[in-house]
Amino acid sequence: MSVTAPQGFEAAGVAVGLKSTGKPDVAVVVNRGPLKIGAAVFTSNRAKANPILWSQQAIQDGGVEAIVLNSGGANCFTGAFGFQTTHMTAEHLAGLLDVSSGDIQVCSTGLIGTGDEVFRQKVLDGTTAAVAALDANGGDAAALAIMTTDSRPKTATVHGDGWTIGGMAKGAGMLAPGLATMLVVLTTDAVLTAEEADAHLRAATRVSFDRLDSDGCMSTNDQVTLMVSGASGVTPETTAFRAALIEVCTDLAVQLQSDAEGANHDIAIEVVHAASEDDAVEVGRSVARNNLFKAAIFGNDPNWGRVLAAIGTTTAPFDPYAVDVDMNGVRVCSNGGPDQPRELVDLTPRKTHVRIDLKEGEASATIYTNDLTHDYVHENSAYSS
Amino acid sequence: MSVTAPQGFEAAGVAVGLKSTGKPDVAVVVNRGPLKIGAAVFTSNRAKANPILWSQQAIQDGGVEAIVLNSGGANCFTGAFGFQTTHMTAEHLAGLLDVSSGDIQVCSTGLIGTGDEVFRQKVLDGTTAAVAALDANGGDAAALAIMTTDSRPKTATVHGDGWTIGGMAKGAGMLAPGLATMLVVLTTDAVLTAEEADAHLRAATRVSFDRLDSDGCMSTNDQVTLMVSGASGVTPETTAFRAALIEVCTDLAVQLQSDAEGANHDIAIEVVHAASEDDAVEVGRSVARNNLFKAAIFGNDPNWGRVLAAIGTTTAPFDPYAVDVDMNGVRVCSNGGPDQPRELVDLTPRKTHVRIDLKEGEASATIYTNDLTHDYVHENSAYSS
Repeated sequence: MSVTAPQGFEAAGVAVGLKSTGKPDVAVVVNRGPLKIGAAVFTSNRAKANPILWSQQAIQDGGVEAIVLNSGGANCFTGAFGFQTTHMTAEHLAGLLDVSSGDIQVCSTGLIGTGDEVFRQKVLDGTTAAVAALDANGGDAAALAIMTTDSRPKTATVHGDGWTIGGMAKGAGMLAPGLATMLVVLTTDAVLTAEEADAHLRAATRVSFDRLDSDGCMSTNDQVTLMVSGASGVTPETTAFRAALIEVCTDLAVQLQSDAEGANHDIAIEVVHAASEDDAVEVGRSVARNNLFKAAIFGNDPNWGRVLAAIGTTTAPFDPYAVDVDMNGVRVCSNGGPDQPRELVDLTPRKTHVRIDLKEGEASATIYTNDLTHDYVHENSAYSS
Repeated sequence: MSVTAPQGFEAAGVAVGLKSTGKPDVAVVVNRGPLKIGAAVFTSNRAKANPILWSQQAIQDGGVEAIVLNSGGANCFTGAFGFQTTHMTAEHLAGLLDVSSGDIQVCSTGLIGTGDEVFRQKVLDGTTAAVAALDANGGDAAALAIMTTDSRPKTATVHGDGWTIGGMAKGAGMLAPGLATMLVVLTTDAVLTAEEADAHLRAATRVSFDRLDSDGCMSTNDQVTLMVSGASGVTPETTAFRAALIEVCTDLAVQLQSDAEGANHDIAIEVVHAASEDDAVEVGRSVARNNLFKAAIFGNDPNWGRVLAAIGTTTAPFDPYAVDVDMNGVRVCSNGGPDQPRELVDLTPRKTHVRIDLKEGEASATIYTNDLTHDYVHENSAYSS
């Protein structure tokens, strides 16, 4: 049910030919209220796509009536014409719904530099068609329409005590959040204020999407939006809602990881006993971005030397001669030296666990990444041509 | 002639079985004076190999009698035993040459975590054999013995006005300098003080090896050493010597780039009109480390959107809607939007030139990198296993 699992939402996904395959490429999610509020987090890439520039402004008052998302073109680096396209899309959807364009969020995904007149007309036509197809069970159709190189749609639902959170996500490459990554729409019928929605969303993305770093490449178009209808009439217990939102976000993040372009391994890099949580994240991310480490995992090679070499490039406090490294449960490195023979490590399963013990403090964090494979290179050497 | 091109040096390279292939794996370069001075720069990776820990201490007084280098094992993360091995190697070579062990530099390269008793004995035996084979024409033999995954030895020579600089280098992976990268030995018969040698070396590496970033992975063992014999008796003109040293370093850096593991393209990323040189370097390095950009070049795809997305992750001042990007001479992006059709760009030559105009100031820098290829993944997924 995706984003229409909670009460108060309608959605649709339609095909207008933005994708050469003819698959669905425009999605609309409408908040029927009674609350029409929301929050969003955006890519921290300073090269931001036109829809990001629009949506960042539009979300500031906390009001969200609807969101329109297209695949098949990022509308990024398309100049003033591209921003006008985003603006026209918001105005067009606002007109169809008889609401203010300032309460419309716009997201685009696909090839950077795509956003000509043909693109504009298709997005506008798709918005019209999607509004005509709006359905209280349209969440799955919307999840299909936002896919790019994804092999499958990503949706998640969690039920609370009288309220529900639903979500959909897309993303298979350029997966490295600075604040948020990929396109994600979350919906809830819980009763929240705009400030509560914002706080919950930032807290949940910080420990879910922000811990995913598939390929170190931060996108220009990433946005995670939470829409609140309040249709359940239930004001949730704060801790329970926070936990449920983290559950939905983590579920979607893991789905993104397991569908990452060309990946053979889903790698969880768990950093324990760091001096601070920031240190743990920095160490995990440094390992996650090390191509030699990532290629070694592809080759089922427990090359812990590359793990330590990557830690050495961080600013985190650590003693190279105190660090322990486990791979899939085998202690391959103790106190910065060899321990168990590498032959004992079985790296054939897709799920891979690397545990790094810095022995500096009490903080920990897990970063989720993928291996570097022939298929990753193949898919990304042929994307736009 | 490599490191024996200048007067006052002898060198040798021998095979002792550190490499399973039986190829040469221990090199020694001896400074016969009359000056016995030198300077060195080291990896800024905080996880430093044992030879780095030794050599950093030994170089502090500016005295260098000889350097011993082994391939076939990095002696990194091998604990106190590994440091003892380095110490014993320095003492052993010092004894053979009847000099102080404090004037011996030691370098190791190969798999991290390799440094057991067999390794130790072979390095000591190799040192003995290399000293017995020392020759005033031994530079090329030494250049062969330091190779790991290199497909060919790297040497360079520049003649000045009465003096000469020679050099050899090895390195084909983990090529991303933080201060220096790879193993490099430079020699000169010019008359320099230790302070002059140090200043020249730092200035030259800053604009040569420090601008090479093949795969973003910083090594634990990198060292660039300059040995000064003064045997020509000529005190060089400062500017001319600096320029010649930069020429030798750049020559070796380009040789390293063109032999990078699995690479199909040698990419020069030229950043112009940056607000500062640091900004230009940061922008160039960010693009050089972007896997999506690197895979696109492998696929002969002039995907300038990935260039701009990479710039957006830096802290350098720039306006995304002012940037121009040229690829192999074709202006594919003007003022942050599409310009010439991508079909006009020919990316089939190995030499690739990307020019980024930030339009912020007068500073510029060029970063040298490689593409991300199937062969890179293949070679690095099978290195240690």
